[in-house]
Amino acid sequence: MIIDVHGHYTTAPKALETWRARQIEAFAAKGPAPRVAELRIGDDELRESIESNQLRLMRERGIDLTIFSPRAGFMAHHVGDFEVSSTWAAICNELCYRVSRLFPGHFVPAAMLPQSPNVDPATCIPELVKCVEEYGNVALNLNPDPSGGHWNSPPLSDRHWYPIYEKMVEYDIPAMIHVSTSCNPSFHTTGAHYLNADTTAFMQCLTSDLFKAFPTLRFVIPHGGGAVPYHWGRFRGLAQELKKPLLADHVLHNVFFDTCVYHQPGIDLLTRVIPIDNILFASEMIGAVRGVDPETGHHYDDTKRYVEAAHVDAGERRRIYETNARRVYPRLDRYLKAQGL
Amino acid sequence: MIIDVHGHYTTAPKALETWRARQIEAFAAKGPAPRVAELRIGDDELRESIESNQLRLMRERGIDLTIFSPRAGFMAHHVGDFEVSSTWAAICNELCYRVSRLFPGHFVPAAMLPQSPNVDPATCIPELVKCVEEYGNVALNLNPDPSGGHWNSPPLSDRHWYPIYEKMVEYDIPAMIHVSTSCNPSFHTTGAHYLNADTTAFMQCLTSDLFKAFPTLRFVIPHGGGAVPYHWGRFRGLAQELKKPLLADHVLHNVFFDTCVYHQPGIDLLTRVIPIDNILFASEMIGAVRGVDPETGHHYDDTKRYVEAAHVDAGERRRIYETNARRVYPRLDRYLKAQGL
Repeated sequence: MIIDVHGHYTTAPKALETWRARQIEAFAAKGPAPRVAELRIGDDELRESIESNQLRLMRERGIDLTIFSPRAGFMAHHVGDFEVSSTWAAICNELCYRVSRLFPGHFVPAAMLPQSPNVDPATCIPELVKCVEEYGNVALNLNPDPSGGHWNSPPLSDRHWYPIYEKMVEYDIPAMIHVSTSCNPSFHTTGAHYLNADTTAFMQCLTSDLFKAFPTLRFVIPHGGGAVPYHWGRFRGLAQELKKPLLADHVLHNVFFDTCVYHQPGIDLLTRVIPIDNILFASEMIGAVRGVDPETGHHYDDTKRYVEAAHVDAGERRRIYETNARRVYPRLDRYLKAQGL
Repeated sequence: MIIDVHGHYTTAPKALETWRARQIEAFAAKGPAPRVAELRIGDDELRESIESNQLRLMRERGIDLTIFSPRAGFMAHHVGDFEVSSTWAAICNELCYRVSRLFPGHFVPAAMLPQSPNVDPATCIPELVKCVEEYGNVALNLNPDPSGGHWNSPPLSDRHWYPIYEKMVEYDIPAMIHVSTSCNPSFHTTGAHYLNADTTAFMQCLTSDLFKAFPTLRFVIPHGGGAVPYHWGRFRGLAQELKKPLLADHVLHNVFFDTCVYHQPGIDLLTRVIPIDNILFASEMIGAVRGVDPETGHHYDDTKRYVEAAHVDAGERRRIYETNARRVYPRLDRYLKAQGL
């Protein structure tokens, strides 16, 4: 079985985007927000948006199941206030939940949080509770920078984030550390901000003792871990300078990297450097890079091809594709077992 | 001949740091700044600080020459104002110049600029002119984020930076794009901010047409290009989405990566992915990562070992070690030729 731990609903019907634009406009104009009930998307539309896109590609590529969360770039936590984020997160999470019900065994939801700059993350708990308890979410996406590129939240090791962590530990769910759109002109969203956030988050873990405070807390660092595996020697050396334990002991019980690296040499490095048990298969399709690589004739984001060609044996490949995900996402494992999978 | 294009004067006599602390203190207290003449460092002290450190390691490792600039973390452009930066840059550049005179053929200086947040970069020109014309500097370090992690300057493609570029083109010198200490608690300086800046700078080049405006402008992206080579497929794919030319045409006439990647798999990826003509040998020793790697028994920053072991032939290795640097830094080439080298 092949599990893709990193998929977003990037192909939602246009009505979603239109509603969001109205919401943002209303906030800016200090007018009344559009009602949630005004957004109507039928099951047929949802089905069509998935069948002709993600599910089609999953079938073509041989991916069985995707952990599916709201579109990362659309989270835009920097827009509006908590109320705006709260309504928006509820809408987006419900759509992913509905997709998971329409395609059981193919899509399992992960939650977006209603984060908002300078708002206590504890305010996100009710949405998270609903997503886990009512919608069967097996993970969440945590934005370490809800400001969208101004980086004015405390580091992930700060007590600021503990309410989320306490709930994660209670539910035994991991968080993918995933920023959203950059509103800072310095940072291109998918070419700089995403990768920078991955590197930043890892280093916040490295410099702190967060996983002593939360030994079972688990973070998935997407996009192949940003710059981290490529600079693994640097990070090992920095940990040494900081008198931290070896990274294997210090962070690798808690930190995992996905395979969203869009060329063979990158996946080769990832699988050579990072212990296999810390690598989770993912593609983030249909996402930032949708084209066909002229050097290979295949889609850049067809990461399964790179994993197939990597120097790992069949057992290791199975851990990357399935076993690691079932261990890191125990609620996914339970869901699959309940289906006899 | 082996040229290290990335060395900083990290081992300057203690008096330098002490003077700087007084300068910062005076600025904070709105008191009179310490006089430059109060900082006295004799040639013997300079000689000792280099001979027992950088030059010792260069001899041990077989590195002939280092392009030597003031300590990156000490630039701290976010501290004080233009006056503070101006005095500080002049002091630091003079020290590197003196080192270059004490060890001709071993150290060639590159300039730090007196940047300051929200100050027109044109104010840096007089210092740059002095460094090139009087001190024989062959390059400069350009900080794309003088705020120290708040990233509130325009992107490198903005006209804001053009005065620097015009001077670079006139002098035919490259800039290493190098940030300084992070004062943003989100970003560890050498584990996050440096790498993020490298990735960010590259993406600013990719999304813009800067090199159409300045076809001979040359940037060296340090630390192996941040996350860029590891995600080369992503960047190729993003350029494609943005309807930009192939990266080889769009940026690789102008952008070069150094080899400050502190483990073998990283250098293997770099040399596999990036054209050899775009790779410049560098170690940034004695810098962020000073320890010995327990996995190899050698210093993390002994990057020559990785280049020696990489799958490149002798001709390619010579380009990485020498020929590329002489092409990218023509003033270095002229200096070497004048010495019969």
